[in-house]
Amino acid sequence: MSADVFVIGIGMTRFGKQPTRSAADLGAEAVRDAIADVCLDPRRIEAAYCGHVYQGMATGQRILAAIGLAGIPLANVENACSSGATAIREGYLAIRAGEHDVVLAVGTEQLTSRFTGALTPDPTDSEAAVGATMPAVYAMRARRYMEEFGMTPQEMAAIPMKNKYNASLNPVAQFRTPVTIEEVLGSRLIADPLRLLDCSPVTDGAAAVILASRRVARELGGDRLVRLAASSLRTGEVEAEPGSMTFERLTWATATDAYERAGVGPEDIDFCEVHDCFSIAEVLRVEGLGLYPQGEYPKYVAKGEADLSGRLPVNPSGGLLGKGHPLGATGVAQVVELVRQLRREAGVRQIPGARVGLAHCRGGKAAGVEGAACTVQILTS
Amino acid sequence: MSADVFVIGIGMTRFGKQPTRSAADLGAEAVRDAIADVCLDPRRIEAAYCGHVYQGMATGQRILAAIGLAGIPLANVENACSSGATAIREGYLAIRAGEHDVVLAVGTEQLTSRFTGALTPDPTDSEAAVGATMPAVYAMRARRYMEEFGMTPQEMAAIPMKNKYNASLNPVAQFRTPVTIEEVLGSRLIADPLRLLDCSPVTDGAAAVILASRRVARELGGDRLVRLAASSLRTGEVEAEPGSMTFERLTWATATDAYERAGVGPEDIDFCEVHDCFSIAEVLRVEGLGLYPQGEYPKYVAKGEADLSGRLPVNPSGGLLGKGHPLGATGVAQVVELVRQLRREAGVRQIPGARVGLAHCRGGKAAGVEGAACTVQILTS
Repeated sequence: MSADVFVIGIGMTRFGKQPTRSAADLGAEAVRDAIADVCLDPRRIEAAYCGHVYQGMATGQRILAAIGLAGIPLANVENACSSGATAIREGYLAIRAGEHDVVLAVGTEQLTSRFTGALTPDPTDSEAAVGATMPAVYAMRARRYMEEFGMTPQEMAAIPMKNKYNASLNPVAQFRTPVTIEEVLGSRLIADPLRLLDCSPVTDGAAAVILASRRVARELGGDRLVRLAASSLRTGEVEAEPGSMTFERLTWATATDAYERAGVGPEDIDFCEVHDCFSIAEVLRVEGLGLYPQGEYPKYVAKGEADLSGRLPVNPSGGLLGKGHPLGATGVAQVVELVRQLRREAGVRQIPGARVGLAHCRGGKAAGVEGAACTVQILTS
Repeated sequence: MSADVFVIGIGMTRFGKQPTRSAADLGAEAVRDAIADVCLDPRRIEAAYCGHVYQGMATGQRILAAIGLAGIPLANVENACSSGATAIREGYLAIRAGEHDVVLAVGTEQLTSRFTGALTPDPTDSEAAVGATMPAVYAMRARRYMEEFGMTPQEMAAIPMKNKYNASLNPVAQFRTPVTIEEVLGSRLIADPLRLLDCSPVTDGAAAVILASRRVARELGGDRLVRLAASSLRTGEVEAEPGSMTFERLTWATATDAYERAGVGPEDIDFCEVHDCFSIAEVLRVEGLGLYPQGEYPKYVAKGEADLSGRLPVNPSGGLLGKGHPLGATGVAQVVELVRQLRREAGVRQIPGARVGLAHCRGGKAAGVEGAACTVQILTS
């Protein structure tokens, strides 16, 4: 029952402000790109999953219609910022079920035509109504982390500097200009201690991957096979209760499951893409994944360990802070980057010796009992 | 790779106008009901899928939090009116993948607090903008069917009469009062020839099923095992093109897949729940499923063949017209009714000799190239 699943095709659009393009239009471009990547006859695609958050009814069906694939089974899936990763997981399960040999997972989001400035919470959101918006909650977590572990503002600012540098090397990233620590610290205060350059932007874009069973992957994938060794999903409850604001139990629970399924441990991970919706979020995720002991990651970032040339590169694509964050597309785009690295097709961003990569998404509420979702996927070359 | 999947628990709320209850609240009630139905320790539930259309981000996570199950994997799925059925299909795949032994599928929808009167189309819906709303398109299809096959208004009115009679026997249905053919024909014209009583209502409600692998079903399900023999999904393209307004190719394509997987044919179906969003829709679905030759179903309804005591009962629960139509809950509630019938627990609605039941949903656009989804599920006792 544990049939292997492979990623045989990857594609994505440019990430950035593209307010005139619909989610279906962006999604279709990403799918065409993935189909071209593997030179696939589109009719080999047997089923599809579409991850998005704000795009309304039947978005995936509109993508299929645009690329001439209407007819195949498709489900739209939503798990807040883990929506795209969840689409991949559902495709992974469908292949493991023996139901399909080739499955498309696409994530797409059109935000800039819906939100002017930052994303606004749902009017029924009781936590946001009392001020516990995303930036506010992550600011509290950053403040607490500084208090507990002595992280300095300069150390935290090294994270967006690193990610925006990586993005400057990524032709599809939203931000192509490196920033200095001074520029981060000089940017506008959003929720103390988080500044504008500590926050991921509002982004439009889409990404797609084509998954296949071992049999079809061997036939179609050539010598560039990348295995999806684990695709784990968990939901969360109280994250920010006393004592846990600085350690993500949900991320750890999800990662534990993924490590076990992939037969690897944190020490085997060569590089990762993690959900850096804010600078502090990268810290919480990397430590929650068990890649560094709690309280230590910022020091190692400052030493360059998370750089492209470091011991454990984090967010080589630029991450959410640099590449951008079109919610439903993010989890798929992380896997696109993992595959590029594992295939050694990442160009100037190539990580030497990349063999095991991890992608992490964390969606929904940062505090409170409702609504969190977390995914961890492990890919191996 | 074709592990059997069983439905071991069923639950649902009352269907009707419940504007003060949230989708999560309704969903949690349905889940508790399903858990109680099988006397399950809730901690045995390993994963969940939540189907809904209009309920916003992370609705399923709110349900899990309400019932104390936050932590397990969950994906929200959306496929317009097939959303609930899609949740069941994803659970079925997760079990067949060997990923889980016990999976919850819940569908929920809160509509009456969002829509006053009928559901209004999305402002970006180009077809609705030119008048091709759901009632308008189904009215054209009804008119065309009358032209091609000579269905009379009286014959069409016999469908809501039958379904509302069945609903009068269903304690959780929205409409508990039988109507006569004269009352249907005397009700307000909505889109000629469709009248108010030809249209499914705006409904709040939720339904849940607990799925299990054979191993766990034997342990937990007792002697009331019902097998989910097929759970098929297709998307559609041009449905209402010349020549096909009166035959649903999408329904037929989905049904063909389901029949093949279940190893049965239309002649083996003892009873069914079909997506009767309008009176004419029941005709199109029953014929699209191959249960009657095209053009003949209305005559047989008039003869009583689709009644609870007839040769092939259709919509014994009351269907969308009688039981109500809380979009995301509908597909799950259909399966709840199938299980009740197959377990011989349907009380005054019990269909004698029910051994093979079929549930059909059809979501999204009735015409046009975008957005249709269709599910067919076959259950056996």
